[in-house]
Amino acid sequence: MAKANDTKNRIWLDYTDLMADAVGPAHGISQAELDAEIPRMQGISWRLKKERAEGGLAFMNLPYQKEWVREIEKYARSLPGNIENFVVIGIGGSALGNIMLHSALNHPEYNLLSQEARGGRPRMFFLDNVDPDWTTSLLEALNPRRTVFNVITKSGDTAETMANFLIARAWLMRAVGKNALCRHIVATTDKSKGHLRKIVEAENYPSFIVPDGVGGRFSVLTPVGLLSAAVSGINIRRLLQGAADMDMCCQADDPRKNPAALNALLHYLLDTLKDKKISVMMPYVHRLRDFADWYRQLWAESLGKETALDGRRVNTGQTPVKALGATDQHSQLQLYMEGPFDKVLTFIGLDKYPKETRIPRAFPDMEGIAYLGGRSLSELIKAEQQSSALALAKNERPNCAIVLPALNPHTLGQLIYMYEVQTAFAGALYNINPFDQPGVEQGKKYACGMMGRKGYEKYKDDVEQSSARTRRTVP
Amino acid sequence: MAKANDTKNRIWLDYTDLMADAVGPAHGISQAELDAEIPRMQGISWRLKKERAEGGLAFMNLPYQKEWVREIEKYARSLPGNIENFVVIGIGGSALGNIMLHSALNHPEYNLLSQEARGGRPRMFFLDNVDPDWTTSLLEALNPRRTVFNVITKSGDTAETMANFLIARAWLMRAVGKNALCRHIVATTDKSKGHLRKIVEAENYPSFIVPDGVGGRFSVLTPVGLLSAAVSGINIRRLLQGAADMDMCCQADDPRKNPAALNALLHYLLDTLKDKKISVMMPYVHRLRDFADWYRQLWAESLGKETALDGRRVNTGQTPVKALGATDQHSQLQLYMEGPFDKVLTFIGLDKYPKETRIPRAFPDMEGIAYLGGRSLSELIKAEQQSSALALAKNERPNCAIVLPALNPHTLGQLIYMYEVQTAFAGALYNINPFDQPGVEQGKKYACGMMGRKGYEKYKDDVEQSSARTRRTVP
Repeated sequence: MAKANDTKNRIWLDYTDLMADAVGPAHGISQAELDAEIPRMQGISWRLKKERAEGGLAFMNLPYQKEWVREIEKYARSLPGNIENFVVIGIGGSALGNIMLHSALNHPEYNLLSQEARGGRPRMFFLDNVDPDWTTSLLEALNPRRTVFNVITKSGDTAETMANFLIARAWLMRAVGKNALCRHIVATTDKSKGHLRKIVEAENYPSFIVPDGVGGRFSVLTPVGLLSAAVSGINIRRLLQGAADMDMCCQADDPRKNPAALNALLHYLLDTLKDKKISVMMPYVHRLRDFADWYRQLWAESLGKETALDGRRVNTGQTPVKALGATDQHSQLQLYMEGPFDKVLTFIGLDKYPKETRIPRAFPDMEGIAYLGGRSLSELIKAEQQSSALALAKNERPNCAIVLPALNPHTLGQLIYMYEVQTAFAGALYNINPFDQPGVEQGKKYACGMMGRKGYEKYKDDVEQSSARTRRTVP
Repeated sequence: MAKANDTKNRIWLDYTDLMADAVGPAHGISQAELDAEIPRMQGISWRLKKERAEGGLAFMNLPYQKEWVREIEKYARSLPGNIENFVVIGIGGSALGNIMLHSALNHPEYNLLSQEARGGRPRMFFLDNVDPDWTTSLLEALNPRRTVFNVITKSGDTAETMANFLIARAWLMRAVGKNALCRHIVATTDKSKGHLRKIVEAENYPSFIVPDGVGGRFSVLTPVGLLSAAVSGINIRRLLQGAADMDMCCQADDPRKNPAALNALLHYLLDTLKDKKISVMMPYVHRLRDFADWYRQLWAESLGKETALDGRRVNTGQTPVKALGATDQHSQLQLYMEGPFDKVLTFIGLDKYPKETRIPRAFPDMEGIAYLGGRSLSELIKAEQQSSALALAKNERPNCAIVLPALNPHTLGQLIYMYEVQTAFAGALYNINPFDQPGVEQGKKYACGMMGRKGYEKYKDDVEQSSARTRRTVP
């Protein structure tokens, strides 16, 4: 794939096959459709810059907030060598970024390596659910004397996180005593408010701050995501540098020169003009499978909104779908090729994989496999990516690719920041607030009611009335 | 065929909130809409029974094919105690079922347990991609002398599987020599045809058969899925018994008494009458996250089809989406609550979790967390499932639940079989063939061309011409 790329380590977007001249006018964007939106996009760009200059859009300044980097690195260095497990307790935006950084930048079988092969660093775990079987089983597998928990919640009353925290804390106390808790727990929470901050002060845990004005799904470049990354040895300065470099790329008011703005616009137009209600992200990089999961929260929770327009209810938001190449060619490609024309696909490709291996020559008389011999495995996965893209385009299925020259903190930082800015642009295009999540409140109230929280009794009644209806069941 | 149903351990479907009386007529199915399809469904049921009686639909008879169970158990028992790693090499239907059984029925941190805690059984790995970094990294972490590979491909020329097989074989040869390969490789492939069968004969590997007439995505109850399950200690007889018991449930020609038929019909009607193009499966059971992935292949590849009706192109198939409760309440629920009305959700709930734990009482003065103290963690996750379901229903979002009394091979066998039969019913409703996947052939041809396979030169030319187009890129 030829590319006039000035900076050697810069990622780029190839959107050739999103356009009508590649996939036809019914399913691709015409030049005229794109051009018509350029003035509006410039207006959005100016508006976002103004908001940022006035102290809003705090996530955009995270690449430059170095004040906590030194503290985080100091904490990571000071972790005693006998600590063999580091367990993040968080959920949603307080876990997905951590998981994504770990999967992308650490050894694919990291937890199975010896501590020496891990550079003396602990194994990493991410407890982001409240399944009693999983919580119990995980603790069974760990030695409390050699385990540190990083509990992450800005508000300090996220039910799932605090439930797991209370369980982990009691489990630690039984083994090490209350006074030693502060050597086994590190908290990431609001600087002054909330229950977790109070507990930190009462029990003297080390702690980091979730800054104000940065929502959970935009928080990976704060201590929320950076602490566990640094503990596992990831170069968080390079990660922030990548984000800062992408910030420079996203300064262009002309969307044709701004990858975040352009990708937002193309996806918005594909949704609203061509009915592509589903956005599939399909990295052909095994390590980026959880990047797709992180994107899935960012895109869904930011853009899935109900608003009113001229008194009419409007429900926005593409449904993001996580897929993985080449694996899902044997699972989802049939649907993407022949199913409804309701999808746009984003491939993520890698020029140079972190490790390479060659397929050995063998069985020369078996023509159905002999051709593989002598080729590298990256040739195979790249051929599969290109082949899927072409087959889809020939079937009028719009798809684009983001290409990383290599996978490292610098390129991943660019990718993260690009998608965060793209989400801000998309929010403006849909004319919704991409930074709230009002739709989850009702469910939380019912759950508080069911769990007997004071003041939530009427929600419990609602759930019980609903359960008491005649149920339709089979068999 | 099988003994009477063990009703105590039976799974069931609760579809209350798929109906118009719960979520309104715009987004739910009315009784009249359901009743109108009953004669058609009875006809489909008769037709499927006839086809099965005539030797078709081979997957339906798998619960009774005990001839390979004894062989599999014998192999599993005979695995030497010094084997510490069992690596499945397969992709799509030759991996997703294996992964699903392992996640669902083995300890959540199985590979981290000591071999003793694993009952002397090996660690389990599933190499289902061709990322050079992952393949290389996985082999780095394993000792070849203590590793067995189960290579699975019916045709024997699946490029991804054979590439990884050739790499693993060479890696083994360097460590143990060619003559010992047969102690480190076990193949699952066609009984007589294909390259892998020839290699098995030439190199004398133990082997199992992928039976004829069973497609990859319906093959989990053949040696494809059962061998790795048995090696890790799963009771495959109980799994098959569960499937057989569900077969009895699915004999009813009246869809109102047949969970597979009814769930197929409800999803078909929600798609075609109410525009629910997306089917979200969201287990509130951490161990069932990969069941959702297995379902994702089954539903997508079976129903995502292009056909012609009266000369008009028709593109069928709901897009299956994998989600996980309670985790994705903090990622996807906002979109499910407020986004487009294009989804139907299936929760999977558990009456009794495999392990239980209690949230300790602590911090009685902090009312935002104190209410959790003394409650069990399963109360919390169940309250969250009920709360999400109710909040969604009140927002006119159709959702249903499959309830498992417990999670064990018997209930999982029922769930697997129900979804397989449901897929056959759905194929008939959409009037497509749910057992083929013609849409993936074009991409495979391009990839063979790119990799230099003889006879595929013209496909290589196509890809190169496509790459040579002027690309649109940014920045």
